[in-house]
Amino acid sequence: MIPDEEFIKDDRVPGPTKEEIRCLVLCKAEIKGDEIIADIGCGTGGFTLEFAKRTRRVYAIDKDPRAVELTRKNLLKHGLTDNVKLINDDAESALKKLEDLDIIIIGGSGGKLPKLIGLAAEKLKMDGKIIVTSILLETKIEAVQKFKKLGFKLGIIDVNIARGQIIKRGTMMLANNPVSIIWGMR
Amino acid sequence: MIPDEEFIKDDRVPGPTKEEIRCLVLCKAEIKGDEIIADIGCGTGGFTLEFAKRTRRVYAIDKDPRAVELTRKNLLKHGLTDNVKLINDDAESALKKLEDLDIIIIGGSGGKLPKLIGLAAEKLKMDGKIIVTSILLETKIEAVQKFKKLGFKLGIIDVNIARGQIIKRGTMMLANNPVSIIWGMR
Amino acid sequence: MIPDEEFIKDDRVPGPTKEEIRCLVLCKAEIKGDEIIADIGCGTGGFTLEFAKRTRRVYAIDKDPRAVELTRKNLLKHGLTDNVKLINDDAESALKKLEDLDIIIIGGSGGKLPKLIGLAAEKLKMDGKIIVTSILLETKIEAVQKFKKLGFKLGIIDVNIARGQIIKRGTMMLANNPVSIIWGMR
Amino acid sequence: MIPDEEFIKDDRVPGPTKEEIRCLVLCKAEIKGDEIIADIGCGTGGFTLEFAKRTRRVYAIDKDPRAVELTRKNLLKHGLTDNVKLINDDAESALKKLEDLDIIIIGGSGGKLPKLIGLAAEKLKMDGKIIVTSILLETKIEAVQKFKKLGFKLGIIDVNIARGQIIKRGTMMLANNPVSIIWGMR
Repeated sequence: MIPDEEFIKDDRVPGPTKEEIRCLVLCKAEIKGDEIIADIGCGTGGFTLEFAKRTRRVYAIDKDPRAVELTRKNLLKHGLTDNVKLINDDAESALKKLEDLDIIIIGGSGGKLPKLIGLAAEKLKMDGKIIVTSILLETKIEAVQKFKKLGFKLGIIDVNIARGQIIKRGTMMLANNPVSIIWGMR
Repeated sequence: MIPDEEFIKDDRVPGPTKEEIRCLVLCKAEIKGDEIIADIGCGTGGFTLEFAKRTRRVYAIDKDPRAVELTRKNLLKHGLTDNVKLINDDAESALKKLEDLDIIIIGGSGGKLPKLIGLAAEKLKMDGKIIVTSILLETKIEAVQKFKKLGFKLGIIDVNIARGQIIKRGTMMLANNPVSIIWGMR
Repeated sequence: MIPDEEFIKDDRVPGPTKEEIRCLVLCKAEIKGDEIIADIGCGTGGFTLEFAKRTRRVYAIDKDPRAVELTRKNLLKHGLTDNVKLINDDAESALKKLEDLDIIIIGGSGGKLPKLIGLAAEKLKMDGKIIVTSILLETKIEAVQKFKKLGFKLGIIDVNIARGQIIKRGTMMLANNPVSIIWGMR
Repeated sequence: MIPDEEFIKDDRVPGPTKEEIRCLVLCKAEIKGDEIIADIGCGTGGFTLEFAKRTRRVYAIDKDPRAVELTRKNLLKHGLTDNVKLINDDAESALKKLEDLDIIIIGGSGGKLPKLIGLAAEKLKMDGKIIVTSILLETKIEAVQKFKKLGFKLGIIDVNIARGQIIKRGTMMLANNPVSIIWGMR
């Protein structure tokens, strides 16, 4: 995994998603290497870079041009530009133009999550998977309910990670904010 | 409970211990109202103020004069000076001079925790209780092992609390750092 | 606090709510001693007993007669029957017949939480507080949204507690399931 | 990742380590595919199977013959026997006979963790990594202190995962016990 501190950051752009969450999302994605991925709300590029290292093609989508630019910089820094297509567009509009997808990551939804999951489901291959990461109570339940409505199998985990910092006096555990990972598939 | 933001703060002094941890320590202390308490490493005064509101007498001890001064300010702000004695001294030296105690809170130990628990045990009434709060891995195990060595019954809980912040987009959960509460009694 | 193991239990009745959660709910209730409380969905009686020890009057309500019976047994065991009125009825129907209340605890809602919070709000004194404990994602968000709709100030914490068990090999931390506490007031 | 329920189990053998912990250990191991791994205290075979799928060779070591047998059964079930050598021996004795290793996982230490980490360090390639998973407070601190003594760089995370269970009434989050992952390298 790429350490959090190896990402170029921009205060106006969220992310990168913490290493441990990227790791768990990768595991839940169960990739084999030839997948086509969309990272919706790519932000700093955390998921985009990890999937670019391990899969065939990644579409990194963000409506904020600064996020797209920042993801581009991070791809360049880590030599991962070959199989990534950056798309500066609204998630819905961008999704519609894409080929069918194996994995769709939704990290930021701008309050339209149910509709977005619906659109993602249309673009999803039969054995594909939609993975939502959420820090908002509202988003979690929206994802769960939409997956139910679609008749998808779904899973959800709440992740609380604290990282040790070695200081003079000892080992201090510092909490990351809780994140939920919700995934759905047919 | 006194909300965290109702404490006067000083960047050079730790605390106040978060409201939920103060609450759990109070519950573990099982106070009835006539107890005599020592708050060792009183810092901002979090525990001192809560126990001053609910027990007979509190000794607030800190070797840092700024901590003692800050606790004094917070006691004044909340009208709780009557039954608190502030002691600006090393914990060991201060403990030796005190009367016997019902509850001894150890929130900051400066690396001498086992010795300090030993001294606290000598000052502890037969049915008294020592309560340690810890954010360091090392302190937790020192407390557990010292209580074992003293032949004390002991308990330990790890507490992870996240507080919701209502923002425009929804309810965001923000994690407080994990704290352990370790208590021992004869 | 009454230790979990000091409650008489019945496999068909939920609870008692774990000691640490009872403790945090008590703190959030900020009781002074003369309050009138309703414990809606009293189950094993966890909240009912704690509030009976510390406030003027408690109405313990559950539609399951086994829960009411179990709460009665636990009140008897702990000598706390004097100021508790047991009501075996539907929450809505019971609430309507009660006097105005200082604190309303809602621990089990049977899927009608928003309506129940609405009714509770009607019975709530001007400076009263409604406190919901929740282990379901859906209930959390229902509580948050209903408090918002009522124009109430609201707070929410997620609580993850692990308790140490001292075994031969050392101190093993065992997790309690996460619980959210959501409170609202005018 | 292999779902927890796809492992054959034996009540007398610990494990399998939960999927999310296996996932995080895999990420911390940063494997490329040609590594030689030792899984010390293989138990049910959780780590052995995951590494067998992704690396060159795995030595699965356990002093309990039932654990070795169970790991064998799980390897057979998942068609992963080719690159795994099962060793029913004491960890220390087994380690000494092995070739140099890229990754050494220590999941169960039988109270001899510091000595075991010392031996592991001797067998570790220059850029290798030792990863300890721990559910005991004592083991965590032993690992941290031994890595410090060896002059190793070290990291530690505490992991609290709750998994959602979809029931009729909604989504109930069930906590897994907290696990610490501690890793060290030169």
